[in-house]
Amino acid sequence: MAINMETGKSITAQELSEQGILKPKEVRQLISEEKITCPTSGMCPGYAQANLVVLPKEYAYDFLLFTQRNPKSCPVLEVTEEGDRFLRKIAPGADIASEIPKYRIYENGVMTGEYTNVERFWRGDLVSFLIGCSFSFESELIDAGIEVRHITEGCNVPMYITNIECEPAGVFSGKMVVSMRPVPYHQLVKAVTVTEQMPRVHGTPIHIGDPSVIGIKDIAKPDFGDAVPVNPGEVPVFWCCGVTPQSVVMNVKSSFCITHAPGHMLITDVKNTELKN
Amino acid sequence: MAINMETGKSITAQELSEQGILKPKEVRQLISEEKITCPTSGMCPGYAQANLVVLPKEYAYDFLLFTQRNPKSCPVLEVTEEGDRFLRKIAPGADIASEIPKYRIYENGVMTGEYTNVERFWRGDLVSFLIGCSFSFESELIDAGIEVRHITEGCNVPMYITNIECEPAGVFSGKMVVSMRPVPYHQLVKAVTVTEQMPRVHGTPIHIGDPSVIGIKDIAKPDFGDAVPVNPGEVPVFWCCGVTPQSVVMNVKSSFCITHAPGHMLITDVKNTELKN
Repeated sequence: MAINMETGKSITAQELSEQGILKPKEVRQLISEEKITCPTSGMCPGYAQANLVVLPKEYAYDFLLFTQRNPKSCPVLEVTEEGDRFLRKIAPGADIASEIPKYRIYENGVMTGEYTNVERFWRGDLVSFLIGCSFSFESELIDAGIEVRHITEGCNVPMYITNIECEPAGVFSGKMVVSMRPVPYHQLVKAVTVTEQMPRVHGTPIHIGDPSVIGIKDIAKPDFGDAVPVNPGEVPVFWCCGVTPQSVVMNVKSSFCITHAPGHMLITDVKNTELKN
Repeated sequence: MAINMETGKSITAQELSEQGILKPKEVRQLISEEKITCPTSGMCPGYAQANLVVLPKEYAYDFLLFTQRNPKSCPVLEVTEEGDRFLRKIAPGADIASEIPKYRIYENGVMTGEYTNVERFWRGDLVSFLIGCSFSFESELIDAGIEVRHITEGCNVPMYITNIECEPAGVFSGKMVVSMRPVPYHQLVKAVTVTEQMPRVHGTPIHIGDPSVIGIKDIAKPDFGDAVPVNPGEVPVFWCCGVTPQSVVMNVKSSFCITHAPGHMLITDVKNTELKN
C-alpha cells in the first residue's frame, strides 16, 4: 500500500502496476511476495506478457515441435535450459517458480492444485516454455483508440475452445483456444493492422464475426475467463490464445506439468514495441 | 531437352524452370531423375525454396531449440516425423532423399561426399528440417525492380561467415552466415521493405554497408558461393542465410548429417506470397 501524493488517497500495488508506475521487475517482486495475486491484464502497460508451460524434458521435443507447427497459437518467446528456474532473455534473472501470480499443477492430466508459488515442486528435469500472450497487444489496441472490453469491465478476458484442430506434433494435439474482444465495425480494420505488427504475441485475429463458424455455441459462456458484453454495432473478434498449449497438454495427460493460471501471466522486461516486425 | 516453338531452338530443363514454365513438382521430378543438378537460384520464380538439414533424432531437440532461438537465420518451414523421407506441408509427397539437386553428407563434422541422391544413406532415426531460403525473396526483389546480381551473373549467391555469434542451444553454437546482394543507394529502403514482409524466408537484412562491421574482411572472397561485383553507387546488403545451421552443425561434429549443397535447394510448392505476413 502506498499514498497517492496528489489526492492523499491510498493506492494499491495493483493500481501502481496498472498505471505503469512500477516497472515489471518491481511488479514481479511484489508477485513473488504474494502482494499481487490477481490476473495481470492491464498491468505494466507497454510491456509484453507471457504464458507459461513447464514440462519434463521427455516431452520437450514434441512440445517444441508443436509450437513450431502452431506458431500463431504458440509464439515461443523463450525456452529455458533443463532444470533452470531462471530466465535469461525476456526477464533476465526472473524466477519462474515464484514471479507469476498464480500457477496450476497437473499430474497425469488432472489439475492437482492452484498455487501462488511452485518452488517446492521444482525438479531437475523441467523445461519452461514462455509463450507470447495477447495481453501484450492490448495496450497497443488502447493506444490506437480501441476499447478493450474486459479491461474496462475489470474482469478476465473471455476464452473459448474452438472446433479448429491444431497441427499435431508427437503426443500433442487438440483444439485451438481463442480469446475474444468486441470491436466496433469502424475499428475492425484497425484491430487487424495493429495486431498484424506483433506476430510474436499471436498477431492478427484468427476469426472476425459469427462465433458459430469456429464452433463457439454461446458467446456468453466462455470456457475460461469471464463473459463480457458484445454491444449492438460491435463484432466479436477472436485471437489465438496461449491457453491452447495448456489445453493440449491436458489432453496428453503428461505425468507432470506446471502452467500459469488463466489470466495470471509473467510480466516480461520486453517492451511491446521490441516485439514489432 | 525441349524445343522452343517460337524460335525453333532447343531449350534446357533449367531454362524451362527459370522461365517458370515448369511447376515445382515437375522440376523436382527432373531433379530426382538427375536431369537438373545445378544451383536452384532463379528457378520457379514466385515459389519458396528451402534449405535442408537432416540429423539423427538424438540431436533434434537441441537443433529445433537452436532454430527457435535464431529465427532470422533458421526460419523453420517444416519438420518431418522421425524416419519419414516424405514431406507433408511445403511440398506434399516430395522425397527429401532425391528431389534436391545436390547433397552433402557429414560424418563427425567431416564432409564425406557430395551426392545427387541420398536414398541409400537413409535411416529410421533421421529427422529433416526444411528452413526458409533467401532465394525465395529474390523474385520479390526483382518484381520490385531491384536487380539480383548473382542471378544476372548466372552464378551462386556469395555467402560469408560473420563475427556475429548465434544464440547457442544445447550442443549447437557458432557464427552467423550471411548472403550478400549489392543494392543501389536509391533502392536500399525498398530492399528492406520488400523483405520485411517475408520473415519466414529470413526477412529484413541483418546489415547494410561496410562489411568489416560484421567481421567480413574481403567482400571479393566469399566463404561459400561465388563473388559478384559491387559497382560504384551500390551498397552490399547482407541477409541471414540458411547455411548458418549447416555451419553450426559442422561445428558440433554430429555423428551423421545430410544437408543440401550450398545453393542447391528444395523448390517447394509454397508461393512466396503465401509466406507474407
